[in-house]
Amino acid sequence: MRYGQPAGYRPLREAIAAYLGAVRAVHCVPDQVIMVSGSQQGLDIAARVLLDPGDAAWIEDPGFHGARAALLAAGAKLIPVPVDREGVDVEAGIRRGNNARVAYVTPSHQFPLGTTLSLSRRLALLKWASKAKAWILEDDYDGEFRYAGRPLASLQGLDGEGRVIYIGTFSKVLFPSLRLGYIIAPMDLIDAFVKARAIVTHASSLMEHAIVADFINEGHFARHIRTMRTLYAERQAVVREEAKTELGGLLDLQSDEAGMDLIGWLPPGVDDRVAFRQAAAHGVEVTPLSAYSFERQKRGALRLGYTGYKPTELRQGVRDLAMALRGLKSRV
Amino acid sequence: MRYGQPAGYRPLREAIAAYLGAVRAVHCVPDQVIMVSGSQQGLDIAARVLLDPGDAAWIEDPGFHGARAALLAAGAKLIPVPVDREGVDVEAGIRRGNNARVAYVTPSHQFPLGTTLSLSRRLALLKWASKAKAWILEDDYDGEFRYAGRPLASLQGLDGEGRVIYIGTFSKVLFPSLRLGYIIAPMDLIDAFVKARAIVTHASSLMEHAIVADFINEGHFARHIRTMRTLYAERQAVVREEAKTELGGLLDLQSDEAGMDLIGWLPPGVDDRVAFRQAAAHGVEVTPLSAYSFERQKRGALRLGYTGYKPTELRQGVRDLAMALRGLKSRV
Repeated sequence: MRYGQPAGYRPLREAIAAYLGAVRAVHCVPDQVIMVSGSQQGLDIAARVLLDPGDAAWIEDPGFHGARAALLAAGAKLIPVPVDREGVDVEAGIRRGNNARVAYVTPSHQFPLGTTLSLSRRLALLKWASKAKAWILEDDYDGEFRYAGRPLASLQGLDGEGRVIYIGTFSKVLFPSLRLGYIIAPMDLIDAFVKARAIVTHASSLMEHAIVADFINEGHFARHIRTMRTLYAERQAVVREEAKTELGGLLDLQSDEAGMDLIGWLPPGVDDRVAFRQAAAHGVEVTPLSAYSFERQKRGALRLGYTGYKPTELRQGVRDLAMALRGLKSRV
Repeated sequence: MRYGQPAGYRPLREAIAAYLGAVRAVHCVPDQVIMVSGSQQGLDIAARVLLDPGDAAWIEDPGFHGARAALLAAGAKLIPVPVDREGVDVEAGIRRGNNARVAYVTPSHQFPLGTTLSLSRRLALLKWASKAKAWILEDDYDGEFRYAGRPLASLQGLDGEGRVIYIGTFSKVLFPSLRLGYIIAPMDLIDAFVKARAIVTHASSLMEHAIVADFINEGHFARHIRTMRTLYAERQAVVREEAKTELGGLLDLQSDEAGMDLIGWLPPGVDDRVAFRQAAAHGVEVTPLSAYSFERQKRGALRLGYTGYKPTELRQGVRDLAMALRGLKSRV
């Protein structure tokens, strides 16, 4: 019940180091694991530790608004870097901001486009960081959910120079209101991160740390992930199946073997904000791609979450969405 | 289990608004209550919302190191303001930094000296803030524990202009590892504080919010405070009684009708850092006043915590401390 260590409950840090080593090929010892209240606090602390006001930082475009907010709050000058089928375009990043101090990336499953950063880009990114003495913020927000192929190794695991700060969260694999995440800091930065964590929040809520440590060590966590992975894969299949008959010519679902949502591309010329409003009017909650974008995207898209709904709800949702989009298309 | 509101669980915010209104004469509606993970996060968020890098901020001297760290991390230029028997010296603050943007104060029970800010100083502070368009950060970290006289009204309750940001915590009245505190924001600043809270931590851990809301609403909280107040008053009395026979001429315990620790003044010329090390060598954990000070204090002092120990432990602790200090005095 006393004040805990700012870095969190030691047995939980040990359990996370072992888990990440086994499952994500993250190289770390428990000292490097710093508990935070979800990835948002991880991003905020990292931005404040790594950046001085006015420093440049790469941000994926489209990308995660929470990371953008944390970097801006630390005084960063944002450099949007486009994303394509291989993930973030590292060469474009170097052209636009070779002198950046930080690159924020989601290599396992790009947010929101769902692409995986290719190996050649991973190596190029690490090479740039090494030369530029820049830091890479790897946000692995939903890396646990991969439905086909082998689990992907983390970027952190490829990094031989301690340039990657890896951020993970239990919000997706357990539940959001738990507010539990972690930073894996390079050895040289452990002290700075622990001190920053102490300034922003003094210590951790130990009750939840102790519960989650037991949950992992007793095997429930691995079992829970397996169960949810099967459930989510089934739910994604339901959406795809229903979409085949309902969404043809209206929304082109991108293949995605990971994560908790799907990107659907709209026909050329359809504004995704208009589509979003039309969907909302039909009771379907989606997010337009432009909400995550700095620069205008060539084609509009909608982000569809599917993990929190039952098959009957998903089928109905796809049909309602089709109805909404048919109304739109006839107006294009 | 979903993401909660950044400001926290509504029923808990309602319970806190009602409690603070009744017990601390804080004027607020539930919308003004923003839940944070303890007063340290409250200070960090407030410093970042209220200050631009380079802005001046008053800090009590001696004062709370956690507040100093949060203000420095936000880029503040610190202005140490001395504390005397009436609390922080507002006139000295105005002389040293009339143009400050923020004044950090602990009016109910100055940390660490234990004095209460006098009414005339309270009014002077509010008048200065109004004229200077400055903000007052009122840290009410242990205001619940007052053993004699009527409970003190908060500074926030005297403020007619919305210049006071009140910060409270459950770390002292419940337990530290809970990591639960709150900011009472002026109406004009609610949006800014809620947005800042969303950037630094996204949302709150709702499980603990719901538990504490029930704990308050079912009457356990008020009963718990009464019980602990009696217990702590008894423990303080034990220390005083033992000190009468043991610490005469070695340590002059300051009278203090509130809080969770006592200040003991050392004989003139005794360095409190030396006394601290000597006490530690005798197994007694105390903090030297100079650890909380910017400028050299005229007289050394030790801060003694007493609430977490049983009477037999307290008596033994006082005897061990006396032994440690006797060794010192013979060397002065």
